[in-house]
Amino acid sequence: MAAPLAHWAMPEPGAAELARAIAGGRIDARALVRQCLDRYEAQEADIHAWAWFDPDHALAQARALDQGPHRGPLHGIPVGVKDVLDTFDMPTAMGSPIYAGHRPPMDAACVALARAAGALVLGKTVTAEFAGSAPGATVNPHDMRRTPGGSSSGSAAAVATGMVPLAFGTQTGGSVLRPAAFCGVTGFKPSFGRWNRAGVKPYADSLDTVGAIAPALEDIELLDAVMVGRPATLAHDRDVVKTLTPPRIGLCRTHLWDLAAPETTAAIEDASMRLSAAGAQVAELEWPAGFADITYWRPFIASRERALAMTDEWQRHRARLSALLQRGIEHGLAVSSTDYAAALRFTLEQRVRAAALFEHFDVLLTPCTTGIAPLGLESTGDPRFQELWTLLHLPALSLPTHQGPAAMPVAIQLVGPRGGDERLIAMARWVSHQLGHWQHR
Amino acid sequence: MAAPLAHWAMPEPGAAELARAIAGGRIDARALVRQCLDRYEAQEADIHAWAWFDPDHALAQARALDQGPHRGPLHGIPVGVKDVLDTFDMPTAMGSPIYAGHRPPMDAACVALARAAGALVLGKTVTAEFAGSAPGATVNPHDMRRTPGGSSSGSAAAVATGMVPLAFGTQTGGSVLRPAAFCGVTGFKPSFGRWNRAGVKPYADSLDTVGAIAPALEDIELLDAVMVGRPATLAHDRDVVKTLTPPRIGLCRTHLWDLAAPETTAAIEDASMRLSAAGAQVAELEWPAGFADITYWRPFIASRERALAMTDEWQRHRARLSALLQRGIEHGLAVSSTDYAAALRFTLEQRVRAAALFEHFDVLLTPCTTGIAPLGLESTGDPRFQELWTLLHLPALSLPTHQGPAAMPVAIQLVGPRGGDERLIAMARWVSHQLGHWQHR
Repeated sequence: MAAPLAHWAMPEPGAAELARAIAGGRIDARALVRQCLDRYEAQEADIHAWAWFDPDHALAQARALDQGPHRGPLHGIPVGVKDVLDTFDMPTAMGSPIYAGHRPPMDAACVALARAAGALVLGKTVTAEFAGSAPGATVNPHDMRRTPGGSSSGSAAAVATGMVPLAFGTQTGGSVLRPAAFCGVTGFKPSFGRWNRAGVKPYADSLDTVGAIAPALEDIELLDAVMVGRPATLAHDRDVVKTLTPPRIGLCRTHLWDLAAPETTAAIEDASMRLSAAGAQVAELEWPAGFADITYWRPFIASRERALAMTDEWQRHRARLSALLQRGIEHGLAVSSTDYAAALRFTLEQRVRAAALFEHFDVLLTPCTTGIAPLGLESTGDPRFQELWTLLHLPALSLPTHQGPAAMPVAIQLVGPRGGDERLIAMARWVSHQLGHWQHR
Repeated sequence: MAAPLAHWAMPEPGAAELARAIAGGRIDARALVRQCLDRYEAQEADIHAWAWFDPDHALAQARALDQGPHRGPLHGIPVGVKDVLDTFDMPTAMGSPIYAGHRPPMDAACVALARAAGALVLGKTVTAEFAGSAPGATVNPHDMRRTPGGSSSGSAAAVATGMVPLAFGTQTGGSVLRPAAFCGVTGFKPSFGRWNRAGVKPYADSLDTVGAIAPALEDIELLDAVMVGRPATLAHDRDVVKTLTPPRIGLCRTHLWDLAAPETTAAIEDASMRLSAAGAQVAELEWPAGFADITYWRPFIASRERALAMTDEWQRHRARLSALLQRGIEHGLAVSSTDYAAALRFTLEQRVRAAALFEHFDVLLTPCTTGIAPLGLESTGDPRFQELWTLLHLPALSLPTHQGPAAMPVAIQLVGPRGGDERLIAMARWVSHQLGHWQHR
């Protein structure tokens, strides 16, 4: 069963806190990078969060930032970059031997935007093979026998261990929110298309979304501001919360409720009760007929788009794809164009209907994962609770608000209307303030 | 004024005709490539359709295909590939000095799919800078003082001159249909997302569409089958037409009708009259209120997504971008996140509403370009008639059915419902059979 948290500390200082420290002259980029390097030295041999890491290159970027003009709200902040995102100065191997040492000539748009705002790229984080299901080497920092989740495994583990205060991920099913949840940190998947996707290795074009993992919501708020070009305030979560009114919350069990382990159902029900006690209007959302079919139709879209996007690798490098991915591509190739068209039609309809979920609610409260990170490293866990919202193109956040068996984190998921990302983040700040933040002990 | 055509010949043998010849053993891939090379030798010095062209590499591919097993419906067919699409064995320079000689390690998905079906890549065709508005070196083959249109300039000119029987393009505004129309060949922009976009340099992620340019509709039908993995029949247009019943055609003047030159209005009205006489039900479509605002809102989306997608080039290579593109990016950066969000909301609504356009019609008949290819090479022409349908995510075809001033081609545009691509191509075959095909004299 999931327990409320005894105290509400953040696991590690996040990007926003560090940006305030840099802006206040209390630390510089080199000192920040050295802190990251210390954590890296102490933990990376166990955790395997990084696909590429060069301390000298990180320090050189920090030095240049310290000696140059103030570049923006992320000035001096180290970020981790999932290794399916292109970087002009580091390899992008995508978790596959096919692209070992591959050097693209340009940065992905999200990486370039972060750098333009002053961030430095600390390194490339481990991704499951091509952001899919075949795990990389990363383990769960809170129990090394457990999966960190995937496919943004390295980004979640690196943030959870304080090796980096902010990291990019990508989500096609549940690849940002699930690892964030399993590792006890905060995950954000924006509305589809909100964060520019140029330079991201495509998995399923109609679902792929760039997202982020960070210690706290204020870090997510900061990065979202940089990604969409709105003013970044660096405001602390605790200060913002005072200005917010309690939201109208729709408790959304979905058709998958029976998949939820006791710690997940307990977390949702405890959150619901306490948020209501704190002044939120909480009511059960009636799950619209038809939405249950998302779980049926989604694989037609994801596996077929995957198979087509990887035609070149399939034709020229098949033997170097994992057996799991080979099977996935075979499934995708077996989806008929008729079934795919039917899946797309269904999906477009549900995306239109999803707007009605927010007629009476500001935010939906829903399970994030089936339960705590499972034992074993051969699977990255069940994506079904996350992938519903990815398919609907809605913004979603995971907050590690509870503690489950083995003292592992349990997250809730908050979902907002399409395009309502800023508001969702604000509501989540209020929710997080009420429920607290899981911390490893 | 646009004149009906005196006779109905195709300008050059297309991919389908050549595939039938190969399947029938009447020609082999090497002989086809040699025909292409003859045309190249005779015309390329004037036309400048190619960004990269290596006769030996083309012949080597042809030889391997001739000596190997039958690979699929495009076996032995040379295709041109717009130079914003990645190719593993040729540079991808994107019409920009920044990427001169850039060698990606993989094929774009559409290229890999064509190769898997037996196609060989003849070379990379000239693109306007990053598939935008700053022209490349290509001229209009029918009057070298005139623009070939853009941004898929080289693909259109290469097909129009018989240098290649099929070529890929991309369309974000009107970049496939306009050059096809200006050069007197057939252009196809599928439903958004229908042809996989992996390996395409992003311009505006929510609009970018892979398409094709070919001599005839049977070529488009063949390539669409390969791109979506449905059976390809290699059926001749003239045989298919016999099996079709005349469509219900919505004459759609749009809010831009006043922009149409006399040759365009005459082509639409003549087509409307003759298709009606041939048995089609033709009626005027009432242009829904609100759709006129597409022309207002589209630049917010295109320029902002462009600016964000090109953050890396903007930050690190600004001086090597054309002045035109620099201004475009500046405009995009000046679009507020609020205006962008409003534009996206508007756009999503119109896409839903667009389904109603086809309640009473199978296909819309609408202007393709304002008029014939304008004189001068400094602009690629006006995209407004094409970009409406790109933004709505609807499939659209351009057919060069009429002759305008200076004996230049005039095209009509046919538009179908989202996902109705196969049916649109079939209806277009019927329309094309009635109206004939412009031919250079």
